[in-house]
Amino acid sequence: MNRPLLQIALDHTDLKAALESAGKVAEEVDVIEAGTILCYAEGAKAVKQIHGAYPDHTIVADLKAADAGEVVANLVFSRGANWMTCICNAPLATMEAAKKVADTYSGEIQVELYGAWSFDLAAKWLDIGIHQAIYHRGRDAAAAGQNWSDEDIQKIRHLGKMGFAVSVTGGLAPQDLSLFRGIPVKCFISGRSLYEAKDPIAAARAFKQAIRDNWNQE
Amino acid sequence: MNRPLLQIALDHTDLKAALESAGKVAEEVDVIEAGTILCYAEGAKAVKQIHGAYPDHTIVADLKAADAGEVVANLVFSRGANWMTCICNAPLATMEAAKKVADTYSGEIQVELYGAWSFDLAAKWLDIGIHQAIYHRGRDAAAAGQNWSDEDIQKIRHLGKMGFAVSVTGGLAPQDLSLFRGIPVKCFISGRSLYEAKDPIAAARAFKQAIRDNWNQE
Repeated sequence: MNRPLLQIALDHTDLKAALESAGKVAEEVDVIEAGTILCYAEGAKAVKQIHGAYPDHTIVADLKAADAGEVVANLVFSRGANWMTCICNAPLATMEAAKKVADTYSGEIQVELYGAWSFDLAAKWLDIGIHQAIYHRGRDAAAAGQNWSDEDIQKIRHLGKMGFAVSVTGGLAPQDLSLFRGIPVKCFISGRSLYEAKDPIAAARAFKQAIRDNWNQE
Repeated sequence: MNRPLLQIALDHTDLKAALESAGKVAEEVDVIEAGTILCYAEGAKAVKQIHGAYPDHTIVADLKAADAGEVVANLVFSRGANWMTCICNAPLATMEAAKKVADTYSGEIQVELYGAWSFDLAAKWLDIGIHQAIYHRGRDAAAAGQNWSDEDIQKIRHLGKMGFAVSVTGGLAPQDLSLFRGIPVKCFISGRSLYEAKDPIAAARAFKQAIRDNWNQE
């Protein structure tokens, strides 16, 4: 099992602020995400500028695309994205169209799991060659006080057994990571708890230490 | 029953081109949409510039928001949007947060129906005060050859009976509008078939004539 990566989500409404936040921890993270909020706020230039500033990092365009897969994938892969997200209830035709573009850039599509989805549906994503999923405890759901549950963990574990590389996000702290032990997590994704920490480098290192502690034997 | 409105969707990857297309038919349409593609490409300034150019039109920000309802609603309502879309599988907490912002601008939230959703879930949207839904025959689904079906029409009719003002979109032609007769459609949404028509004004007028023909008695 590969050790999980650390991903920073930039969910700013302003690209300059996003780049400043990235600068605080880039050296300690593997993956940098142009968050949905940032994409809505600043458009595709956000992807371009983040890739330009961090050409050696994996760059995610978190569009949560629901339609027009080819057009929107071209928007972001042409600007340096390595991975792009589709929302789980996007039509398969959308995911396939996005994947076709991703393939030409050696990129990947990630399915973002929100609301109603099923393992039967997830099997279809594997069938069309999509192997990454993001299990998301939504920001609004987290704010409403919902915590990581056994059900969450079981679902993530099952997705891993199906063959998905699952990224996990939503108000994660380093001490939460042991919950996911034994699961082939692709990335742990964190945002404000990294760049709004008093010491962002120390915050990122605490995540990486927790990753090493829990995936040390593998 | 109010007569349906005509909405133009601007799904360009370039704001200048979008504004040029809007200029071809604005005088004949009621609602102008900053499409998801345009928002991903150009960010929230697309909403601001469309509103600036057409301050008397209803402006839709078609974000298909899935999370962070308050933040993204503020992004677009503060720039002149009147309506904003959430994706149907967004958590209720996200929809509620977006609606709270919309209310402060006398704006409205529209739920965009993609993939798996249920009438039970739709009833919850009504409970939180969201009364608009968009029935979307996806662009990729349409390209894959799926046409309007009896099932589509029955679902739209049922949403209307529940109390939704339903907008309808996805490869519509004026001759399709009779399919929706008797249903309280909020808007018929069209994009390229308006602004890429040889005579965009004539194309818009053909839609409006079809609306009058089919909703004439009401």
